[in-house]
Amino acid sequence: MSYNPSGYNYGAPPPSQPYYSTPYAAPSPYGQPQQPAFTSPYSYGTFTFPPGTDPNVIACFQVADIDRSGVVDDKELQIALSSYNQSFSIRTVRLLMHHFTNTNTRKIGPKEFTQVFYSLQNWRAIFEKFDRDRSGHIDTWELREALTSLGFTVSPVVLDLLVSKFDKTGGYKQAIEYDNFIECCLIVKGLTEKFKEKDTMYSGNATFTYEAFMLTVLPFLIV
Amino acid sequence: MSYNPSGYNYGAPPPSQPYYSTPYAAPSPYGQPQQPAFTSPYSYGTFTFPPGTDPNVIACFQVADIDRSGVVDDKELQIALSSYNQSFSIRTVRLLMHHFTNTNTRKIGPKEFTQVFYSLQNWRAIFEKFDRDRSGHIDTWELREALTSLGFTVSPVVLDLLVSKFDKTGGYKQAIEYDNFIECCLIVKGLTEKFKEKDTMYSGNATFTYEAFMLTVLPFLIV
Ligand SMILES: [Ca+2]
Ligand SMILES: [Ca+2]
Repeated sequence: MSYNPSGYNYGAPPPSQPYYSTPYAAPSPYGQPQQPAFTSPYSYGTFTFPPGTDPNVIACFQVADIDRSGVVDDKELQIALSSYNQSFSIRTVRLLMHHFTNTNTRKIGPKEFTQVFYSLQNWRAIFEKFDRDRSGHIDTWELREALTSLGFTVSPVVLDLLVSKFDKTGGYKQAIEYDNFIECCLIVKGLTEKFKEKDTMYSGNATFTYEAFMLTVLPFLIV
Repeated sequence: MSYNPSGYNYGAPPPSQPYYSTPYAAPSPYGQPQQPAFTSPYSYGTFTFPPGTDPNVIACFQVADIDRSGVVDDKELQIALSSYNQSFSIRTVRLLMHHFTNTNTRKIGPKEFTQVFYSLQNWRAIFEKFDRDRSGHIDTWELREALTSLGFTVSPVVLDLLVSKFDKTGGYKQAIEYDNFIECCLIVKGLTEKFKEKDTMYSGNATFTYEAFMLTVLPFLIV
């Protein structure tokens, strides 16, 4: 794609690509034949992995759950994610947990862990696809393409705001690293979903009471 | 005030005390006789302190502006604020700058510095008023009273969310320190003002376009 955004509509997103669509399907962890050891439900604490869960996911969960409590807390998840050659801030980890639990419990069980596993796999693939020179950073236009491929069409003003905020290089490169990319995806995805919930008429306008507005925004703000 | 919130309406705020009122008036830096040296406009860089500015404010500005650039940047303001026996996180400082400039420039001149000075003086007095045992913390109900005295009536659900987020004691005390109190005030004040801007009919409902929603929330989220 050219750096000249010819033909790109900076206003409302085109009907074929609404701001809240998710054009990709995450690979399903279910329904495929697996090794016999995991074809029956795998109980873990009070939670259970469904039959057919990828053994890799279960193994990762077991490694992550350091204190064998049956749930993975924020610090355990940070260690688990950081061990994969990536550093994750506790803020990104908590945003991730909030995103998949919609609560502030800071603990996830097998179900949410599986969702986190596949989402990160997907976001990693997108990051690597758009980080074409393997620099470990994506720039403004690569971020725009990455968000578009995730189904989010943001305006140039929003894009500039995201880049200026997530660019930890001091501004000279205008580039975003992997864990900030994940935080950026979580914020854009989370806020867009919350907006969509209140845009019940699909009019492009969302109406909030003061209480709903505060309860929508605060969890993102102060994880 | 009793811990039993008898007579407190958890629903809509009473008409005499709308959620966005500011029942206090910050002490005016102008209009009082000052020392002769400061009765004429005080030029500083390309900016100017108005006549009658409290010499203390000007002196603080001069100390804060370490590199004599005529503006105080985020790191300079953090040092200036932290030297007053309080630690301020860079996030709180940037929220403060965003609040008074409504931009992301991370620089303030004499005008905004004066506003920061009096706001912090006011918030400090409120914090000390409600921190009755001088523990350096205020608890949930003290926070509610403090926010009410600033003109913000938040529901118990919002209050719990604020306390659970800003409590850095690990949750066993449910208490908030001074710099987190400032961050809390900035977030509640800032979000309430943004809500009010979109609640043009004073109906208690605010309507946002997707673009306006993102541009409203993102600056708070990722300072
Ligand atoms: Ca655990
Ligand atoms: Ca300066």
